[in-house]
Amino acid sequence: MPEIRNVLFIMCDQLRADYLSCYGHPVIETPNIDRLANRGVRFTRAFVQGGVCGSSRMSFYTGRYAASHRATWNFVPLPIDELTLGDYLTAAGRRAHLIGKTHFAPDTMAMHRCGIEDDSEASALLREGGFTLVARHEGDLPTGKADYTAFLRSKGYQGQDPWLDYAVAVRTPDGGTADGWHMRNAHLPARVAEEHSETAYVTDTAIDFIRRQGETPWVLHLSYIKPHWPYVAPAPYHALYRDADTGPVLRDAREAENEHPVVSAYRRSRASQTFADPAVARHVRPTYMGLVRQIDTHIGRILDLLESLGRLKDTLIVFTSDHGDYLGDHGLGEKELFHDIIHRVPFLLVDPTLAADGTRGSVDDRFVEAIDVLPTILDALALPAATHRLEGRSLLPLTRGEATAWRSSVVSELDYGLKEARRLVGLPAASTCRAIMLRSAEWKYVYWHGFRPQLFNLADDPDEFADLGANPRFRQVGDRFRDEVLDWLATRRARATLDFATIERRTGRAPDGIHIGLW
Amino acid sequence: MPEIRNVLFIMCDQLRADYLSCYGHPVIETPNIDRLANRGVRFTRAFVQGGVCGSSRMSFYTGRYAASHRATWNFVPLPIDELTLGDYLTAAGRRAHLIGKTHFAPDTMAMHRCGIEDDSEASALLREGGFTLVARHEGDLPTGKADYTAFLRSKGYQGQDPWLDYAVAVRTPDGGTADGWHMRNAHLPARVAEEHSETAYVTDTAIDFIRRQGETPWVLHLSYIKPHWPYVAPAPYHALYRDADTGPVLRDAREAENEHPVVSAYRRSRASQTFADPAVARHVRPTYMGLVRQIDTHIGRILDLLESLGRLKDTLIVFTSDHGDYLGDHGLGEKELFHDIIHRVPFLLVDPTLAADGTRGSVDDRFVEAIDVLPTILDALALPAATHRLEGRSLLPLTRGEATAWRSSVVSELDYGLKEARRLVGLPAASTCRAIMLRSAEWKYVYWHGFRPQLFNLADDPDEFADLGANPRFRQVGDRFRDEVLDWLATRRARATLDFATIERRTGRAPDGIHIGLW
Repeated sequence: MPEIRNVLFIMCDQLRADYLSCYGHPVIETPNIDRLANRGVRFTRAFVQGGVCGSSRMSFYTGRYAASHRATWNFVPLPIDELTLGDYLTAAGRRAHLIGKTHFAPDTMAMHRCGIEDDSEASALLREGGFTLVARHEGDLPTGKADYTAFLRSKGYQGQDPWLDYAVAVRTPDGGTADGWHMRNAHLPARVAEEHSETAYVTDTAIDFIRRQGETPWVLHLSYIKPHWPYVAPAPYHALYRDADTGPVLRDAREAENEHPVVSAYRRSRASQTFADPAVARHVRPTYMGLVRQIDTHIGRILDLLESLGRLKDTLIVFTSDHGDYLGDHGLGEKELFHDIIHRVPFLLVDPTLAADGTRGSVDDRFVEAIDVLPTILDALALPAATHRLEGRSLLPLTRGEATAWRSSVVSELDYGLKEARRLVGLPAASTCRAIMLRSAEWKYVYWHGFRPQLFNLADDPDEFADLGANPRFRQVGDRFRDEVLDWLATRRARATLDFATIERRTGRAPDGIHIGLW
Repeated sequence: MPEIRNVLFIMCDQLRADYLSCYGHPVIETPNIDRLANRGVRFTRAFVQGGVCGSSRMSFYTGRYAASHRATWNFVPLPIDELTLGDYLTAAGRRAHLIGKTHFAPDTMAMHRCGIEDDSEASALLREGGFTLVARHEGDLPTGKADYTAFLRSKGYQGQDPWLDYAVAVRTPDGGTADGWHMRNAHLPARVAEEHSETAYVTDTAIDFIRRQGETPWVLHLSYIKPHWPYVAPAPYHALYRDADTGPVLRDAREAENEHPVVSAYRRSRASQTFADPAVARHVRPTYMGLVRQIDTHIGRILDLLESLGRLKDTLIVFTSDHGDYLGDHGLGEKELFHDIIHRVPFLLVDPTLAADGTRGSVDDRFVEAIDVLPTILDALALPAATHRLEGRSLLPLTRGEATAWRSSVVSELDYGLKEARRLVGLPAASTCRAIMLRSAEWKYVYWHGFRPQLFNLADDPDEFADLGANPRFRQVGDRFRDEVLDWLATRRARATLDFATIERRTGRAPDGIHIGLW
């Protein structure tokens, strides 16, 4: 049996689970991503731990809930004491290479206080969340834009900011230029050629990286910024689904009845105000669909390469996303709130070992969480895991059909302290702006600190239109979940500086020479 | 008005609040500690955040609950990202000097991972929890014993471990030596002369330190290991209360009825088994009382010095303890469980400013927590405090008689994962072994993860004999507190890498150049 030697951890950004053909989308063709589904297990109930890039990704990278890793929103630095995928691999003499996006923000205050030298190897890892950079590309963010900018320049794209001027700017029919930030321009092609677009660039860099490794084992986080906004696709993808059916825009009159105050505040954001018009969704979705199709094409290139190199047989592949995108559903734009559209993500796991042959092409509806990815990778590589820190579980028992008790619910969180919504509900910056979602097969419960909970009966109301959180008839259901939230909060792995073996060894033992309670 | 220039933060170890004359002890005379009460405010409801040295002290030093600082028990390293009193002072160009005990354990794994050099200044601070050592003395612990050992040797106490052979060994009537770890020997004098005992040594070091500062402002943590076990006092203190009334040994038949499983497990510890015989309490208490009296005498020396140097007028003084000692009450020995005997501590605060003249010698029954000490010190020195991290509040509005809304309850926590009690209740090392106490003026509620709660009606049952936690008649009271525990857990200051000013500045603002939701 070939051992797993390599890991390819593919992440898309803001990709909804239902926008892939293997997840049932009626229009988009994603034959290459579907190849992954056919080679591995497709999980239908995979959930992220946060509905926004930064928080969600830190859960992927640390194997811990936001309550534990504490980087609760975008640009909240991950505390220096957290361990990431890269840190676990580094400790084992390996590396986690990065091509693309992490949204990682370093804890520079702590680095400064600890006197960590700017030019040390430890410092380089701490600045990148444990990853070893091949090329970092965060799309919109200044961080790490340099690599892609240099690439664009080398291809003849000039100007002060070629990303802004070409990758996310569009070409008007009269040969002029328009601003890709304006969604009204989503139907126009990017000014960048497809082969120079972000998705192509990231893929090319990965292909080059994989080739260069030869027989050396590798772990690569291949992390696409798309189909994240700006909703700009290069030709021909911008036009591929322009006249296609973009599906219903989910709305229901019940959503306006006694709406939760924080949901109402989110509804007042510009993105939600704009998407409140279903015509916007219908205008933007074809571009989003094109961007998904483009990613699929490039993933096909990666898979072809792995196949030609004989690497498919010893490479574990994870394909997922950091969260979804409302795209006008529920009259909302963007993300963060707790609908499945945002928190349920595509999750394909290709375990190349013989032991997993029995589950190839199968569908698994057990609950997966983003925090499972790190334990899965460590398990696949037979590397030690700090079980006293990790809150997720390896998924390999599932791909290998081993009998195992499994979780019956998932948890995700939101910190809206940095959102305008905080001010709209009247909370100052020093407030706790915290929500915790428990989702079981039948119910979704959201604890909102300082506000009434939300409650949805998913069996009767799978689209989450009717919020029962204020309905006294469901008080008992809510109370039960409230108790579960308490138990969940109490069981976070906060005592992270001692491992369980040390706990076991020290339990009941006073330090040498100490004798307590002797008569 | 003289500004506060110096801070003297005095801590005793395992000192019960009720064992001081200013707190009403009928026998022990503590005239010097009482001087502090007369010069400042005596708080009657001051509570620690943990009933064991390590966890409690880290709350004093970080201004955060154990849930936040995560050093949940003895020898659990404080995570490297936590900030202590010393860190705040260092950032302001000052120092927190230490003489005595901290029970601090450094996060050496993180230091190693971060490549922190062993000989750097930052490393020295990280190894000592931010304190600058004058002399560290932890009594029983190997850490920092070197200074006192060297002192004893310089005074002619020889042998491999002079602390063990003299400071906590006793002299038998026939001139022989006996083991001070055996409580049966508590009535015998230590083999060390009083002027060379731990309490005298720590005091002498402090006197020398204060003299050397001259007019340079200072912050000194003067931290006595006593009256913590071993219960050995030097002459004449060993005999001072030998024939005195040692008070009742609190027991009640109701305590045996349906006892909480974790309390029962603690009862099976050797210390509790030994103290189950009230004769043991009566034998040990006179020694404990002598040790308290000895500390009082030495605090008198410090106060005399401050007075002679004119330092009383510009020095803020805190006098407190890290937790109490059962001394046989409730049939228990040692500490940790949630009786007021353990979690309520003496707390005297001398604010030397004119603004506090109105409260001198007064008694304040508002709830104080250990986490208030750090904010109080920073407030006194007009130094910046990381309010997004600190969970306590400055007490200076109380000493200065300013109108202020105040807390109506306190919280303390226990992690018994390292105790034999964990095994006795059948939990493996990987378990959550967590309890959270909420204590209001009338009630004490303890959430025990995985077990029934405890509930005491303090108005009717101030000695906490009748645990109502399993009594269905009090279900509603318990449910209310359970909800409060959830809200308390949800409001911990976990998002610690961004301050509130940054939160406020960034709220609702996308990074430059990002335009979300534009039509």
